[in-house]
Amino acid sequence: MNAGIIIIGDEILIGQVVDINSSWISREMNKIGFRTETVITVGDDGKSISDAIDRCLEVADVVFMTGGLGPTKDDITKKVICEKFGTELVLNEAVLANVAEMLGRRGIALTENNRGQALVPATATVVNNAVGTAPGIMMEISNISHSVPFVSTSSTGGINSLPETLPERSRRASRRVELVGRNKLLFSMPGVPFEMRYLMEHEIIPLIKKHYNLKPVFHKTLLLTGIAESILAEKISDWEDSLAENVKLAYLPAYSSIRLRLSVYQPDDTTESYINAKVEELKRIVPENIIAYEDIKLEELVGKLLKDKHFTVATAESCTGGKVASLITSVSGSSEYYKGSVVSYCNEVKADVLGVSRADLEKYGAVSSTVAEQMASGVRRLLKTDYAVATTGIAGPTGGSDEKPVGTVWIAVATPTKVVSRKYVFGKDRAINIERFAASALSMLIVEMEKEC
Amino acid sequence: MNAGIIIIGDEILIGQVVDINSSWISREMNKIGFRTETVITVGDDGKSISDAIDRCLEVADVVFMTGGLGPTKDDITKKVICEKFGTELVLNEAVLANVAEMLGRRGIALTENNRGQALVPATATVVNNAVGTAPGIMMEISNISHSVPFVSTSSTGGINSLPETLPERSRRASRRVELVGRNKLLFSMPGVPFEMRYLMEHEIIPLIKKHYNLKPVFHKTLLLTGIAESILAEKISDWEDSLAENVKLAYLPAYSSIRLRLSVYQPDDTTESYINAKVEELKRIVPENIIAYEDIKLEELVGKLLKDKHFTVATAESCTGGKVASLITSVSGSSEYYKGSVVSYCNEVKADVLGVSRADLEKYGAVSSTVAEQMASGVRRLLKTDYAVATTGIAGPTGGSDEKPVGTVWIAVATPTKVVSRKYVFGKDRAINIERFAASALSMLIVEMEKEC
Repeated sequence: MNAGIIIIGDEILIGQVVDINSSWISREMNKIGFRTETVITVGDDGKSISDAIDRCLEVADVVFMTGGLGPTKDDITKKVICEKFGTELVLNEAVLANVAEMLGRRGIALTENNRGQALVPATATVVNNAVGTAPGIMMEISNISHSVPFVSTSSTGGINSLPETLPERSRRASRRVELVGRNKLLFSMPGVPFEMRYLMEHEIIPLIKKHYNLKPVFHKTLLLTGIAESILAEKISDWEDSLAENVKLAYLPAYSSIRLRLSVYQPDDTTESYINAKVEELKRIVPENIIAYEDIKLEELVGKLLKDKHFTVATAESCTGGKVASLITSVSGSSEYYKGSVVSYCNEVKADVLGVSRADLEKYGAVSSTVAEQMASGVRRLLKTDYAVATTGIAGPTGGSDEKPVGTVWIAVATPTKVVSRKYVFGKDRAINIERFAASALSMLIVEMEKEC
Repeated sequence: MNAGIIIIGDEILIGQVVDINSSWISREMNKIGFRTETVITVGDDGKSISDAIDRCLEVADVVFMTGGLGPTKDDITKKVICEKFGTELVLNEAVLANVAEMLGRRGIALTENNRGQALVPATATVVNNAVGTAPGIMMEISNISHSVPFVSTSSTGGINSLPETLPERSRRASRRVELVGRNKLLFSMPGVPFEMRYLMEHEIIPLIKKHYNLKPVFHKTLLLTGIAESILAEKISDWEDSLAENVKLAYLPAYSSIRLRLSVYQPDDTTESYINAKVEELKRIVPENIIAYEDIKLEELVGKLLKDKHFTVATAESCTGGKVASLITSVSGSSEYYKGSVVSYCNEVKADVLGVSRADLEKYGAVSSTVAEQMASGVRRLLKTDYAVATTGIAGPTGGSDEKPVGTVWIAVATPTKVVSRKYVFGKDRAINIERFAASALSMLIVEMEKEC
């Protein structure tokens, strides 16, 4: 089954906001067996939204729209839906009560704009939003001909024409209970990510699951580090050619790692053992590089390794400015093994708090093996942990020299038995360097932990 | 002028990677007067890529494609371009030399896959990639009829049909020197963000600028804090209605702030003074809430305020786990005013390193006004700064109680003259809570700094 996603908002098209909704929806739908065919981003413009709906209905069974449902005047999604599916906006008392309650809890009085949020297309099914004021909306579309969808509940009203009679409210209530099997579904949700997620998790996914019954896609993801994408591709080329035709291989390079994903879209009983056998073959080809046999982030793997052994870790960060700490603590439950970080963005803090030798800072400079190792040892001692990782480098765009260009970083890992350090040289982009430095710190910590265990 | 963007990659459609290229391209193109009409994301599939090109050429003057140019076998963009525009892949010696040099610098030998990267469509103009091995490609498209584009250099070869004669290499060289004015342009770039950015900044944007000559869009963005979107909309409703017809207003709510953006797509000499007058009116309506009159991020505003007064700041973070530090240090030049952070993810570190009273930790709990204030004072003293901000809260999903539910955070700001703290209560989502806590910490720091200055 296919999904289509429409992201609505001038703020996205102008580049002021990055769309994170489509990747989340795709990931979650994939788990229940839907493949996203396309994501179309359009502005707050009726014609563009309408065209995008047509395009998605051509290729997808379920269409998700996010954005354009807020209380402000640039939000027009509901009006487009009405015009397109020949219906009109009616006030929904349940939604209005929800809006009033949501606002009341935050001590905010109901405004005329908020009342507008309680208007929903007459033929739509309301998807309750318990975490925000804009309701979700579901339209059921039974018949697509020449890419022009018709509304199932209105035998007379086609697209772009008003229905002769508006469906009664009672019909809406009964449709909520029982959906006709294979009709296409169109969902309109708020663009605020956590509201969208709430609606999907609590209302929409359960609803879709109930009405379609597909096998999930089989995915096997491996995490590799310490190898360039092109070298890997060359090394495993024969193995790749040997994969059965229904197996799709994707390379997903990240900042300090590559994920290899094997996908089977029509899995059967033999799929899992077949894939496991192919993974065993792969292990023999690149034995040094595979650090995990699951779709796991570096920061999650750090946590898993530490938790398994009841070890703790601390970080000392200069150039990464809290990024390593932030990644580690993005994982729920990280307080079990993570004690904290000293972000030493100036030499004074390196010396005063972490105990790095002032003489060494002078002699070798802050970006050096010696300083990185003293930072790692220093924070391990200060925060009393088993492991520690430290970064010191030049993220850029300024601060580089011929000897130590922008993109240079020294990373040190302190373990219960030793301290090791390594230099990496990356590029010129500050934001990317910070990501790469932080990912490399996690990779290096993982490799050292796996060596000792 | 309009732009269209095509993002290619199964990894995007499966939700494993978030597309950040389209927002960057849109933002940069907007600066030079292009409005992005649509962004279409498709998988590594020829038909989908081809359809997306048609769609974009219908609505856009310039089409950008990212992804599908790497050295691995799932990358097919170049093949699709050849089939679509009736040409074939030829080895480009200059690209091959670049690939060999790029790899050589990293001590990697040229593989057969890498040689494949030097194949480019015969009628394409190569856009040199100095930071990666996959070249950019430019196709010039002179004639669009019935949404089927034809290639200017081949009078016989339409879409999906092979040309009777392949254009000679020499013709390519001459086209590189002079572009025909208003032909549509199609660019194919690598999906790796920093490579795409490099190509855009150094090659493609200068090229587009040279050949089109539009006025830039006029934008004025205001940053507001401490007001809900719906309240703001209600308060400024009359003002909004009074805006001239060619002015577009957008609300861009973020975690602890709202940006209001006024856009004029056909600006003239009077635009700036008109908009300034409307901003003056707005100031009288919401005098307390506007914290900046430019499109600036909270972390950038923190830096600006500190730099103006030669003040320094430090952070002490519990629940935000380095996120506040990470935001502050994402700004280039932050080492001028940011000295560092203590991420105290356990009480031991709060007491031992930051000097929070163990008795108070016991009595009030870690998530309390008292502890937040002692963290802020403690880190201000330890790192010897003018200002400090501290966070302590419950990001979730576990760790909440009736009295202190998940989403509760105490934020404290220590200034040269006082320490203040405030409680905020947000939602249940860990990742969102961390973002909101961190943004609120920056907002609170800004408000306190603006009060004192």
